[in-house]
Amino acid sequence: MSSDVIALASDHGGVELKSLLKQELLQAGHGVLDLGTEGSASVDYPDFAEAMAEAIRQGAAGRGVLICGTGIGISIAANRYPFIRAALVADVTTARLSRQHNDANVLVLGGRTMGAEVARDCLKAFLETPFEGGRHQRRIDKMGLART
Amino acid sequence: MSSDVIALASDHGGVELKSLLKQELLQAGHGVLDLGTEGSASVDYPDFAEAMAEAIRQGAAGRGVLICGTGIGISIAANRYPFIRAALVADVTTARLSRQHNDANVLVLGGRTMGAEVARDCLKAFLETPFEGGRHQRRIDKMGLART
Repeated sequence: MSSDVIALASDHGGVELKSLLKQELLQAGHGVLDLGTEGSASVDYPDFAEAMAEAIRQGAAGRGVLICGTGIGISIAANRYPFIRAALVADVTTARLSRQHNDANVLVLGGRTMGAEVARDCLKAFLETPFEGGRHQRRIDKMGLART
Repeated sequence: MSSDVIALASDHGGVELKSLLKQELLQAGHGVLDLGTEGSASVDYPDFAEAMAEAIRQGAAGRGVLICGTGIGISIAANRYPFIRAALVADVTTARLSRQHNDANVLVLGGRTMGAEVARDCLKAFLETPFEGGRHQRRIDKMGLART
């Protein structure tokens, strides 16, 4: 099922961490959709946020992981789309809360700010933590509108 | 000048940190626009992200600080608006980079995840660090479009 596929995308600042997390996901038996980039050539992070949004919009993936140098630029770009809830997290606690409170469908990490072991734990928390619903659903509904 | 005014807004999870940063800004001689909330009653963070976006859209403030429990929800909501670049930061390094690379106009902090001294340093870095321009401007231009 495509809703079980996890999409990955990064700019050049996230290539190494993306590769590491891709192996982690494949070893755990997840379906993976790698949207690039590959290699160290400088690219623009909004293009990869857009690729992620289109993959989720079209149902090619149900969830995703985005990475740029700090995660800041690619999280801003991804959250332009009203059906994306992209959570830039710094540790496993915020990764857990992004699921419990925000029903995040995209995890955002900083490829130059977060180490590999922390990133692995954040990914695990993101994948395994359920949404709490309740009052949090009302807040999420308010974010589902297109803004200009 | 209203472009020198700094707007502050938070949900109930950020009231204490907002109050602390407000005093910090006033003591440093900044104009401050406090958009609430006040008190501990539970409110919805998207309403305060919207208040911030409207204050910046209308020119009542040039920059802002948003706070919720983790900063995740209110950063997602604020970045729905194509003229907002809301940077959720975890430390002074990411606060600095949010200005240098992303020209962030809104600093986002977690009221329940970040301590007061770190928050003060992040605010200082956000206010004092210039944007680097160049290749970063091209990426920002790509994020200036409304998305649906």
